[in-house]
Amino acid sequence: MSQLNPHMLSGIRILDLTRALAGPTCTRLFAEMGADVIKVEAAPDGDRTRLVSKMRNERGLYFVQQNLNKRSVAIDFSKPGGLDLVRELVPHCDVVVENYKPGVMKGMGLAYEDLKKLREDIILCSISALGQSGPLSHKPGYDYIAQAYAGVTSMIGPRDESPYIPLLGLGDVGTGVHAAFAIAASLLYRARTGRGQFLDIALLDCYYHAHEVNVHQFTASAGAMKPTRSGRHLTYLCPAGVFRGTSGDIVLMGFMHHWADVCAAMGRPELVTAPGWATDAERMPHFEEVIALIESWLQSFPDVDSAIAAFDAHGVPCAPVLSIEQTVSHPHFIERGTIRTIHDPVAGEFQIPGMPIKTSDFPANNDYVAPLLGEHNDEVLGSLLGKSTADIDALRVAGVLISKPY
Amino acid sequence: MSQLNPHMLSGIRILDLTRALAGPTCTRLFAEMGADVIKVEAAPDGDRTRLVSKMRNERGLYFVQQNLNKRSVAIDFSKPGGLDLVRELVPHCDVVVENYKPGVMKGMGLAYEDLKKLREDIILCSISALGQSGPLSHKPGYDYIAQAYAGVTSMIGPRDESPYIPLLGLGDVGTGVHAAFAIAASLLYRARTGRGQFLDIALLDCYYHAHEVNVHQFTASAGAMKPTRSGRHLTYLCPAGVFRGTSGDIVLMGFMHHWADVCAAMGRPELVTAPGWATDAERMPHFEEVIALIESWLQSFPDVDSAIAAFDAHGVPCAPVLSIEQTVSHPHFIERGTIRTIHDPVAGEFQIPGMPIKTSDFPANNDYVAPLLGEHNDEVLGSLLGKSTADIDALRVAGVLISKPY
Repeated sequence: MSQLNPHMLSGIRILDLTRALAGPTCTRLFAEMGADVIKVEAAPDGDRTRLVSKMRNERGLYFVQQNLNKRSVAIDFSKPGGLDLVRELVPHCDVVVENYKPGVMKGMGLAYEDLKKLREDIILCSISALGQSGPLSHKPGYDYIAQAYAGVTSMIGPRDESPYIPLLGLGDVGTGVHAAFAIAASLLYRARTGRGQFLDIALLDCYYHAHEVNVHQFTASAGAMKPTRSGRHLTYLCPAGVFRGTSGDIVLMGFMHHWADVCAAMGRPELVTAPGWATDAERMPHFEEVIALIESWLQSFPDVDSAIAAFDAHGVPCAPVLSIEQTVSHPHFIERGTIRTIHDPVAGEFQIPGMPIKTSDFPANNDYVAPLLGEHNDEVLGSLLGKSTADIDALRVAGVLISKPY
Repeated sequence: MSQLNPHMLSGIRILDLTRALAGPTCTRLFAEMGADVIKVEAAPDGDRTRLVSKMRNERGLYFVQQNLNKRSVAIDFSKPGGLDLVRELVPHCDVVVENYKPGVMKGMGLAYEDLKKLREDIILCSISALGQSGPLSHKPGYDYIAQAYAGVTSMIGPRDESPYIPLLGLGDVGTGVHAAFAIAASLLYRARTGRGQFLDIALLDCYYHAHEVNVHQFTASAGAMKPTRSGRHLTYLCPAGVFRGTSGDIVLMGFMHHWADVCAAMGRPELVTAPGWATDAERMPHFEEVIALIESWLQSFPDVDSAIAAFDAHGVPCAPVLSIEQTVSHPHFIERGTIRTIHDPVAGEFQIPGMPIKTSDFPANNDYVAPLLGEHNDEVLGSLLGKSTADIDALRVAGVLISKPY
């Protein structure tokens, strides 16, 4: 229990049957805010992400990042009594979170109806790629599968070529946060009514949620407007997009009331009111010319930083396209804790993204560690289930409980 | 109050000082789950997104989508007594949410310390692009500004060219969900301790949160690994990415244990064990050849759907890259409520993304409408603040309260 600290969600206990990314992100948010998250991992290796980013001493850094401050109980589900241990834990937990392929929980006797018999007010949150219902729900899923179905991939890249995919876990992480909100709302509801809940959270739905304008534009125009990818610039405001600078790229949002500031920065005040330049509607038809003008001016600077400084001096919304390398040592990231250092007992020090929830009562980035496989077998089975040392030893000898030193 | 229905978060009241996308997404999630969300809008036009997607009868569909089931009170902050009305509402609300540029709330006398004097246990959630602290916090921000700083933009596009930006609100919407979770956690904390909270939620932090592997790869390798964009395919697994099919694109995740299924689908069982083809590590060095093999096979199908069916028959994780147009009528989207129809009193029927939180106790997609500007002036000031009809009329005549029929 030494990893638990007082925080906003202290006192809540979660049975965490998740692996990979979306599910572990959801439960990690709770763990970082003080909930007791018991991660039950399956033999032989536990969460398979323990095998990813094994950069130091056999420790999977991917797993570490997504599983801070959780406790690990490792069980061979195929052994007699293995799944019984999971069922025994349910009455002690407020919430069960899982991200198996739809149907697997039922096959293990852990469907919502089964769990309700173990604890009437249980909250079960099931996270999946395409959802628990609908004709596609049976399909195997990953982040990019849901992204493609959700029409998100279709909105990234040049108009007349195949699309590109973002090389990070936007969908999985975002879905984990949706699930965390859904669970917190369910806990508030339970406190008021005593009722539990089943939550069906899909990457597809969460990705689709991000279409703030595309879906209503298409449907309300009866198909006259067909939103699609169109390159590096917005299609309804100008200038707005990615601009080539010297030795790097710059994102500029210079539309509407910002245009005057862009013109001031460029020393072209006459363009604020010049015919063909004054409004977004006037600029859009010849946006290539607008882009060329700005990019030509950007080339007059020795580097991206000096161009950004010139825009900043006039209050123009702009940003350098930072590489990962540039973010990790950036003063803003360090001061805000947008990046943080992990002190892992096996892998040593390295850095990961900071906890994105910053609160006034608690520090965001605590010195959390992630559990070794099965590290808390004895602690959890002893304290929660009242198993004796002899009972636990027998389960270990029978291979029901497993553990590893990383 | 007719829009309020019993739901998970009934009984919670939110003072909503947000506009545009990230803030309204946060408060809309609460409104859709039954909280009483009082959106205070500033003269002359209220939330400026009321001017976006004005496709029918002067109604801004963008605003409708992000503000379902809220109540609108419209105030001219510049008039005497305008901000006093906002302050009078604070004691009646559990939570205040705002996404002004950092410093603006303080300038209006609505900083956290000011709000605490009005209600000791108030929860204030401030949403911004780059955060309330740090050297960049003063910069004007939009989704793509935070995305560029967060190293996200740098991970999208071809390796040797400028990056692309996704044309949807991934960062704003995702940040709104982070904020919703933070608020719900704060409400659970308040219920246990009686304490309020100040929450500082930044798009920058939420975007950076999505780097599930990039940051630790760079830092733990001491810079030997420099994650960057690399086109349409993953750099550590193969095959995994966007593949050209006949008249469309296909996302295929055919790595690790899925490779055997890919080979079976293609009728090339010998490649499961052939030297140079058996493992991801063997395939990566000649990934262009692997991609060409698969794309060549895909060209043997008349269209994307038939190729997907062939992969599906072998359990291969795959998806068509659906356009927005293809999503809105897709049977899976309709059955799950991933898409839903809005019946707007001004604009009529159109479709938007469904509520992404699906729960067992309540329907996800209720027949919600968004408020007209100032629609609930009288109702809110009368019932909550005890203003008389004469008081309210005087405020209207003085131009402190405003309203519009759309």
